[in-house]
Amino acid sequence: MNPEPGQIRPAVLLLSGGLDSTTLLALAVRQGYQIHALSFRYGQRHAVELEAARRAAARYGVARHLIVDIDLRTFGGSVLTSHGEVPRDRPLDAPGIPATYVPARNTIFLAYALAFAEVTGASDIFIGVNALDYSGYPDCRPEYIESFERMANLATRAAAEGRRLVIHAPLIRMAKREIIELGLQLGVDYADTSSCYDPAPDGTACGHCDACRLRLRGFAEAGATDPVRYAGHPTH
Amino acid sequence: MNPEPGQIRPAVLLLSGGLDSTTLLALAVRQGYQIHALSFRYGQRHAVELEAARRAAARYGVARHLIVDIDLRTFGGSVLTSHGEVPRDRPLDAPGIPATYVPARNTIFLAYALAFAEVTGASDIFIGVNALDYSGYPDCRPEYIESFERMANLATRAAAEGRRLVIHAPLIRMAKREIIELGLQLGVDYADTSSCYDPAPDGTACGHCDACRLRLRGFAEAGATDPVRYAGHPTH
Repeated sequence: MNPEPGQIRPAVLLLSGGLDSTTLLALAVRQGYQIHALSFRYGQRHAVELEAARRAAARYGVARHLIVDIDLRTFGGSVLTSHGEVPRDRPLDAPGIPATYVPARNTIFLAYALAFAEVTGASDIFIGVNALDYSGYPDCRPEYIESFERMANLATRAAAEGRRLVIHAPLIRMAKREIIELGLQLGVDYADTSSCYDPAPDGTACGHCDACRLRLRGFAEAGATDPVRYAGHPTH
Repeated sequence: MNPEPGQIRPAVLLLSGGLDSTTLLALAVRQGYQIHALSFRYGQRHAVELEAARRAAARYGVARHLIVDIDLRTFGGSVLTSHGEVPRDRPLDAPGIPATYVPARNTIFLAYALAFAEVTGASDIFIGVNALDYSGYPDCRPEYIESFERMANLATRAAAEGRRLVIHAPLIRMAKREIIELGLQLGVDYADTSSCYDPAPDGTACGHCDACRLRLRGFAEAGATDPVRYAGHPTH
């Protein structure tokens, strides 16, 4: 349910600075929510995406943008937070869970979002997960998001006092092509977004990790050109 | 289900260093689990409890004790993480959610425990929540814990691969008196634990916050003496 015209309805939005969450931000702003954006510095090797998150937050005039430091490197278990190699040119439809999976990442992110929602008085949390492109990530599936929402409605003071919390994941069943088409309609400037798992220090995308290749394939299918810079000759 | 004799069964245990989680640790060790303890430095004013957690972890020979820095002060919303006053001599059975409630705290703690369980290969997570003494905290209720467990079983690689995860909250329906009696049977040295929400820098308990008074009442009902030091004349 979108807010009524003229009504200020605060929402917490998980903003990585990537293509999906920036499209999500444009969508939630268009729907009339007052956005409290939440990003994480979690030891990811692609911290350049936080700069993209800052740019998006500024561009869309969010009410507040909080960057929380959490150290998932302590736990290990993912090449995204370690010195392992990010897989290059992997078949995009390979079965199983990719090495880039970070244990319980979305559960941790959503748990913080829940705390942030509680203190800002928000009843709405937006997350840009996508079940099609990341079918190997268990915490991107619709049944996971629904289950988190049920849990969240037992977890908080707000819920105990009868304010129902909704987790919005409007991109969850969309193909990358559809997300890009939606974003272009909404006027998203994709030059400002960062998706690469293994970018150069200046932000240049590698063009060979899963994230780059899903993105490039999405742009190709949408008949559009990806405006970000890639190193060498990207594949998709 | 306890581990078979001789079988090493790793478990993640949330250890605050308080009375409940130290009793929980003694219980899980007695049941034969190999413990991976997890504590948090979360901006709590009672950080002296982390020293108690370290002592308990050493005493019980845990396989690993991880102390994770998370900054819940960023969010605010609780006197435990702010400069607000911890309520003194409040009626213990007052209805409603106390000012010491920290938004989404157990959800954040359990989310980290889930990540830790995934990388250590543990299928068991122990949490010392108690629904009777903390009936005002929504995230201490049995239905909340059950809902988190259902969510967790959709969230992780382990779950996707068929390893079922169990959240153990064996103290959840026990009175403080019963927890203390159990701990004394297990040989817990309660002098080493710290429960106070507002201790002096040297660790002396205030004797007037909810946590002190629940603890003192529990010891009185168990016919035992609380060995920790209190400032002045505690009430219960």
